Amino acid sequence: MELNQIYSPINEDLSKVEDALREVARVDFQWLAQLLSHSLGIGGKRIRPALTLLSGKFYNYHLEYLLHMAAAIELMHTATLVHDDAIDKSETRRGRPTIYKLWGTDPAVLLGDYLFAKSSVEVSDTLNVRAIKLLSQTLMIISQGELNQAINAFNINQKREDYFQRIFGKTASLFCLSTESGSVLSQAPEISIQHLRIYGHNLGLAFQIVDDILDFVGTEEELGKPAGSDLMQGTLTLPALMLNERYPQDNPVKQFFQNRNKPENIQTAIEQIRSSSIINDCYQVAKDFSDKACRQIQALPDIPSRQAMMDLADFVVKRRN
Amino acid sequence: MELNQIYSPINEDLSKVEDALREVARVDFQWLAQLLSHSLGIGGKRIRPALTLLSGKFYNYHLEYLLHMAAAIELMHTATLVHDDAIDKSETRRGRPTIYKLWGTDPAVLLGDYLFAKSSVEVSDTLNVRAIKLLSQTLMIISQGELNQAINAFNINQKREDYFQRIFGKTASLFCLSTESGSVLSQAPEISIQHLRIYGHNLGLAFQIVDDILDFVGTEEELGKPAGSDLMQGTLTLPALMLNERYPQDNPVKQFFQNRNKPENIQTAIEQIRSSSIINDCYQVAKDFSDKACRQIQALPDIPSRQAMMDLADFVVKRRN
Repeated sequence: MELNQIYSPINEDLSKVEDALREVARVDFQWLAQLLSHSLGIGGKRIRPALTLLSGKFYNYHLEYLLHMAAAIELMHTATLVHDDAIDKSETRRGRPTIYKLWGTDPAVLLGDYLFAKSSVEVSDTLNVRAIKLLSQTLMIISQGELNQAINAFNINQKREDYFQRIFGKTASLFCLSTESGSVLSQAPEISIQHLRIYGHNLGLAFQIVDDILDFVGTEEELGKPAGSDLMQGTLTLPALMLNERYPQDNPVKQFFQNRNKPENIQTAIEQIRSSSIINDCYQVAKDFSDKACRQIQALPDIPSRQAMMDLADFVVKRRN
Repeated sequence: MELNQIYSPINEDLSKVEDALREVARVDFQWLAQLLSHSLGIGGKRIRPALTLLSGKFYNYHLEYLLHMAAAIELMHTATLVHDDAIDKSETRRGRPTIYKLWGTDPAVLLGDYLFAKSSVEVSDTLNVRAIKLLSQTLMIISQGELNQAINAFNINQKREDYFQRIFGKTASLFCLSTESGSVLSQAPEISIQHLRIYGHNLGLAFQIVDDILDFVGTEEELGKPAGSDLMQGTLTLPALMLNERYPQDNPVKQFFQNRNKPENIQTAIEQIRSSSIINDCYQVAKDFSDKACRQIQALPDIPSRQAMMDLADFVVKRRN
């Protein structure tokens, strides 16, 4: 199933989020306009704003507030990507050169700050203090997670627990925010808010695990960046972690983390992982989270949005990029 | 007059802002705690939180909300300093090594993001959407100003107008936010809010002009960083701009901006500026803004805070660091 089929209950409103983002890039300061339009441009799946809109459908769908929230979330997401690329010195994302690559670290830092600010302005237009606070708390979790990742780079002694905590900070926290805020803004009963929040949490974990799998099995064309990028950054993701679990004495990931000037170990790690059952096992872990997500929303009203969210959970584990 | 004398109407409450900032640094993640405590530590004048508290005194002084606002503003201010130091590669601030110097660019970027987030959480605890939005809008102005400064680095063709716009973005916008939010949170009448906002605007301009003067006349010990740092970064401040106005054909600032590998021009510029009437003229410009600030609050209720704000306007142009 294609994403725009899944999004059918909200496709029209999602295009209004796109309009809002294009509006953000319309500023007098020409250089800033260029940076904004490059960073907010094409290629994203817009899963987070879609989740906000879908989650808002179960009770009082208040489009104006939901649009501000969805735009705020996408702006914050973009801000973190722009900063991450500068920190990781990533040259491409979604097949296009990054802000870091085109303009350097300093503009990337300042553009990210501007996007954070614009995100806060958007969320304040929801006039909902709970939603506003959720967004800020999520940004705290994300930046704490990034600091955690920075300090644990090239650390082979990480358990699955550490990995799950890390990808919660990096990805699932924002998925939670998307679903929780959408339900908060539509005056959902507290119990439904919690169901949607936990759906978002599990969907986010599944999404990131698949991202981490694709970094090993995808082609450079599919990924929009070279395969093995995570290992290159010293980030221990689930496939690499499983390889290390299976061969704790010696394995190419361990070798590379210990001796970074031998990048040929990355290729060896990719090949070992691809030719083992690790990829299947990782997909099973992702599938379990995706199933858990679906179970959370079974008790919600049976509307097209609920089916869309089930389909999205399925899409997330089947996607190739 | 010393700052703590000026602050006498709010000294006790200002120490509660300090407590709140110390509380921010109390996190389980040890490395983050260390970064937070270093960046939020000693040495600041805390002018911005003081302005929020003083501005809150004229009508309904609601301490709890004002403390959240004051902490939010100081956190945002600190976040921008941490990012600026990383961008400018500044090694010292207030006589201490910067986060950038001690830990590098990446932790500085992530710490700044965390501080922005924490600042947003604090401001959401004011439960006041207008105050929340003001803070976000100010961050947009600041980051836009920084981008503007980045693109105009080493550009000799800047007018006073450009300079004033730049220091509004860099400093005065945050002073405005401090006074405006303090009055908004104390339910001041709209006319008083505007008076306090314009007071903050003019005080901020005066403050930054004096900062820019001190960069030419201060000793390294007083400044906590080498003199001439602004020129070294390619930032054209009022003293350098006046030198260029007086000798448009040829002057050491122009020479340095055109040919950056001759840093001896910086020393020559410092000496020419010091031995001319430029410093006096700059002080006069600062004094005019400071007087303008005072005139704005003359119509406000005659309470100790008003006198404190008059004294602060005086202090700002007389300080040596």
